[in-house]
Order: sequence, then C-alpha cells, then structure tokens
Amino acid sequence: MSKKIDLLIDADIHPVLNTKRIQHFLPEPWRTRLADGNRGPGGLGYWNPNGVMRKDAVIADGTRIESSAEHLAQHFLDAYQIDYGVLNPSNSLSIGTSPELDYAAALLAATNDVIVHDWLPVDTRLRASLLVSPGDPLLAAKEIHRLGDHPGLVQILMPSASRIAYGNRFFYPIYEAAVAHQLPIAIHPGAEGSGMSAPPTAVGYPSNYFEWHTGLVGGYIAHLISLIAEGVFVRFPSLKFVLIEGGVSWLPAILWRLDKNWKALRMTMPWLDRLPSDIIREHVLLTTQPLEEPEHPGHLTAIFEMFAVSQMLMFSSDFPHWDSDMPDFAGRVFPAAVRPRIMGQTASELYGLGALHD
Amino acid sequence: MSKKIDLLIDADIHPVLNTKRIQHFLPEPWRTRLADGNRGPGGLGYWNPNGVMRKDAVIADGTRIESSAEHLAQHFLDAYQIDYGVLNPSNSLSIGTSPELDYAAALLAATNDVIVHDWLPVDTRLRASLLVSPGDPLLAAKEIHRLGDHPGLVQILMPSASRIAYGNRFFYPIYEAAVAHQLPIAIHPGAEGSGMSAPPTAVGYPSNYFEWHTGLVGGYIAHLISLIAEGVFVRFPSLKFVLIEGGVSWLPAILWRLDKNWKALRMTMPWLDRLPSDIIREHVLLTTQPLEEPEHPGHLTAIFEMFAVSQMLMFSSDFPHWDSDMPDFAGRVFPAAVRPRIMGQTASELYGLGALHD
Repeated sequence: MSKKIDLLIDADIHPVLNTKRIQHFLPEPWRTRLADGNRGPGGLGYWNPNGVMRKDAVIADGTRIESSAEHLAQHFLDAYQIDYGVLNPSNSLSIGTSPELDYAAALLAATNDVIVHDWLPVDTRLRASLLVSPGDPLLAAKEIHRLGDHPGLVQILMPSASRIAYGNRFFYPIYEAAVAHQLPIAIHPGAEGSGMSAPPTAVGYPSNYFEWHTGLVGGYIAHLISLIAEGVFVRFPSLKFVLIEGGVSWLPAILWRLDKNWKALRMTMPWLDRLPSDIIREHVLLTTQPLEEPEHPGHLTAIFEMFAVSQMLMFSSDFPHWDSDMPDFAGRVFPAAVRPRIMGQTASELYGLGALHD
Repeated sequence: MSKKIDLLIDADIHPVLNTKRIQHFLPEPWRTRLADGNRGPGGLGYWNPNGVMRKDAVIADGTRIESSAEHLAQHFLDAYQIDYGVLNPSNSLSIGTSPELDYAAALLAATNDVIVHDWLPVDTRLRASLLVSPGDPLLAAKEIHRLGDHPGLVQILMPSASRIAYGNRFFYPIYEAAVAHQLPIAIHPGAEGSGMSAPPTAVGYPSNYFEWHTGLVGGYIAHLISLIAEGVFVRFPSLKFVLIEGGVSWLPAILWRLDKNWKALRMTMPWLDRLPSDIIREHVLLTTQPLEEPEHPGHLTAIFEMFAVSQMLMFSSDFPHWDSDMPDFAGRVFPAAVRPRIMGQTASELYGLGALHD
C-alpha cells in the first residue's frame, strides 16, 4: 500500500449495536416491545404483548400442549370432552401468501404430510385442514387431488390474506378440485399484510396490532361480497365456504347491504337469480372465535336472531392462541335452542363426522 | 422518396373502430353496459345501470333540480320541509384522491369559491362542506384557514378513499386546522380506487359496481379503528368525525371488537385510557343513507338499541343520487323516541344550526 497522501472518506459502514444498549435509552412501552421481539403474526410483525400463544397451555414438565397430537388429545380434547377437533397448523398461513410459489406449494405439501403421518393416526378424534397456497391455483389443485380423499382431511385451508378477493375466477381451479373431493374451503386470518397479500385494510397499513387485529373483518367482508358478486356458488353449487376467526356480528349488516344492492343492481349480474342472503345461508359458515362480547349479553342474542345461526355458525376454540375461547365459555353465550347445533351438529354435517356416543 | 425496394412492415398502427359496430357483436348485458358509458363513480368506472343520478330529479322544463341553489331550494327543501341542508358537491371527492396535489388543492379551492359565491347566498337554509384534498395536509390546512370561519361552511369534507387510514399522524395538520375553526371532519365514499387511493378493499379490486358499492363499509371500518388506535381524539379532544354514507348496522359489531381488544392490548396504546366505544360515542357521528333495510324491520330497531343512536346518527338523503332516501322514508324507519334527534336535533347541535320556527 502506498503512503497515504489524499483524504479518504467511507460514507457507508455498518456497525452492529448492542440491543441492550438501545433498550437502555428506549422509554416504555417501547422498551418492553423491543425486548419482546416481533411476536405479531404475519410478515408485518406488529406487537401483541400477550404473545400469540396462551401462556397456560403448558403441562407440568414444561411441554406445550399443542406440540404433539398425544398431548393435545390428553390435555385439551379429553379435558373439554371434545368429540372431534380440526387441526389448522400455526405458521401455515403466511406460507400461503409467499410470492415464491413453488417453494410455498412444496412447503405446505410437506406440512400436510406431517399432519397425515404424525398427527392424524394418533387419535381418532383428530381431523385436519388440507393446506394450500392460493398464489398458484393450479399447484393448489394438484395438492388437493393428491390428498383430497384422505379421510382425516376435512376441508381446504387458505389464508384470508390475499391480493385478490376469493370470488375472482383466478381461484376457480382450487374450487373445482375442492368440489371434486367434496371438501369445503376455509379461510383463516393471520397473514394479512405478509408476503404478496394486499395491505391489511382498504385504506392501507394499520399502525399497531390492536388496529390490525380489530380490522381483520374488512378482508372477510370483502371476500364474502366477492364470492356472491362473482357467482362462485352458482358455478360451484356444491361448494361450501367456511369463514374462520373473522368475527360474527357484522354478518347481518352485510347481508342487508347485499340484498338491498342486489335488488337495484341485479341486471349487472345475470348469473344471480336470488337474494344473496339466501345463497350465503346455504353455502357459507362461520366459526365463533373470537366471539364479540357486548356489555349487554342480550345484544349478542339479538344478533343471533338476525341470520340462520343454526345452519351457519360452528364452535371454534382457536386453542392455544392468546384469545382462544374454551368450550365452557362458548357454551354459556349461545342461546339454548341453537347451542347443540353450534357446538357440534352443524360441523358434524359439514365435515361428515358421526356421533361417537350412540 | 426513393424507389421502394426493401420489405417495409409497421408493427403498431392505431385505428379507431366504430363503437356501434363493437356493440353489434357484443351480447347483453354488456351491450347496454358499453352504450351506457362508464357511469360508476371514481376512477374505476364500474357500471351502475341506474346511473349515479335519480332520473326523477327533474322539473317540467327539463332542468335538473341539483343544478342550482334556487331549484334545489324550491323543489327539494320546500318539497320536503327541510330546515337546513348541507351541500356536498358531486365530483369533488375524486379530486381529493388526485396525485396532482397542487392542482387538486387549487381545484377544490375554486369549487369552494363557487359554493360561497353562487350557492350559499341564495337560500338561508343552505350550508356546505369545505372541500379539501387530504393528499397534501398542509395545503388542506391552508384552505381551512382561508375559509374556515365562513358561517355557511359547517364541516370539512374529505374522500373516504385513501391510501392511508385517517388515524395516521400524516393528517394531523388537517385536524389542527379543523379544531382551530371548530369544524367537524366528514368523509364520504365515491372515489374508492380512483387516483392514488388504495384498492377499494383489503383484498384488492372488486369486479363490478355491486361488489364495489356493497363493500364500501370496509374502508369506513378501517378508518374508524385507525382513529381510535392512533389516539386522534386524545390529541384533538374537541374534534368530531362524521362518517357519511358508510352504512350504520355494522357499527355495534366493530364497537364490541374494539372494546374487547382494547381490554387485552391497551398497554400497546398508553394514550388510550378508556373504552373505545366511549370515545366513539363522544366524537363520531354517522349519517343514515343508505340505511340497511332488513326483511324484518324489528332487526333494525334492535341494532338501534346497540349504540348511542340519539347522539350519533344524523339523517341524510344523498339527494339526488340513485339510491337516495327521502325524509318521509327515513322518518318511518326510526323509532319515535329517537326520531327527532336523528332527523335534525343532533345535526343542529353539531353544526350550530338553530331552530327556525320558534
């Protein structure tokens, strides 16, 4: 190296700072937030201070209950006398929004294999969703044809996060395959804003987890309207759609908007020859968690009188996620007349699950 | 020109085809749709076969009623015995989503001048919104300071279409100016998907006007959650927000989701020290049109018992748009106990409009 004679400036060097030092200068609640890491779901990493997982879903030796079929059967299904439970693996949803289409399809197929090999054989009460990535509908259809006749796989599961509403014809190959194997399609939140999904709301990105989580209903409403507007259930008359974890009480308002607008605008959708609410009652189901909890319980009872609860609503715990509803909680809030259907009969019919106790 | 010896190919020439010939080969309903032009609102041009304007809002000589203050006063305010009416000029909303920020601000300022010079002086019953483009909050604030003390301008109006939710601090200059002039902020749909606004739903672009219109609630829900999550009403304790034409019956479900999630996640928003539903009751108002029309009218009555209707709901006609609700229609569907407040008293307090008949 020659002797230094000229001025030398490097305008871009990357040190690594000690996170603890940054925490030292950070006020609360941001200090706790940084220490906690990015524990929100999806690719955006919003902070849920409760964590995604229930802290009490642990047995005495420290094992988490959801970590194996055996523990899940003993410490959750047994504990709550659950006859059948549908497994929807955590972490599978944000894979479904990956722009790496071939990797996403392969990874979900391998995840399905784990469910089929390691989980379903363990306990006769376990069933599971068949995971697909909707980003490549043809690869998704291929996976449905590969495993769609497995008796333990009772529905197709896709993320509710999407850049295209699910009524769009882009997804028809998935629906054709689902119908061929007589499987409902279910959607589940958690990946909104991750991968190549659209921003989580119609007006962009939420600023925290509270805003993100509370607003998840927006995508569900848009998917439901899209499924009707595009005539998916006219083209696939045996298809059922399950809206998991998207909320319940918003449904009547949307049914009324759909019916009112259909009356005025039906000529633009010649394929729709009856009220949207009639189509939805026959084709769409919702799961209960997280159930709204109004200050006055009678308000929820009133909501339950505004749509076909006994046909459309199915109990779900979301166990072991932070805001899960245990069966004893849920049993209390449903009117007695429709409780047996919500807690099991409707799902029994949808998924072909017979009573065990005859 | 030299003698042609080599082969000459032009790979891109633009003819103009006769639209009538294209119609000739087009099946219904698309033939009618093409003939009708792009009559949907906003930049996307979805087709509303009814047109945007009521066909019956015309007097005997063919003049449209909304085309002048004089006609509006005589044929609408007089006809329905309306004491005060707030003017929200058509076409102003998609200007508010224009990426040409200086032009948009200038164009809306000129539109405000027309209202002030030509419309408000004509009839003492007329009031109007002060139009601003939220794309440049500093220019919007400047316009609010220019005209915000005009006694005929009773609120700020922005499009509900946006690429950023309205709780975001990007918009604080607008709210500071509104508070300085004691003016509520109102938002109105119509421009969703136009200009630089986000796609109209959380899962992308609707495929027709029915889907677009029915789903407008999604943006409203996201704005409302954002206003709470970001603490706008904590920072601006005298600010009021008016959700025009965004639907009504979805509100209880969202209040319940907000309150439930606030209880679990409040530590992430130390600025929020009470229930979101309490904040909303004091700061947010909704207008009635297009009111949901359930098959069983009692269902709407039940919804009205689930939030502070007498504080939060204000009658609006949306005249002369295609789906407008006339006062006689609206008067029928509101419970008698809250009807006077919905039909006028709440708006009288919000906009400072005294009774004329004392």
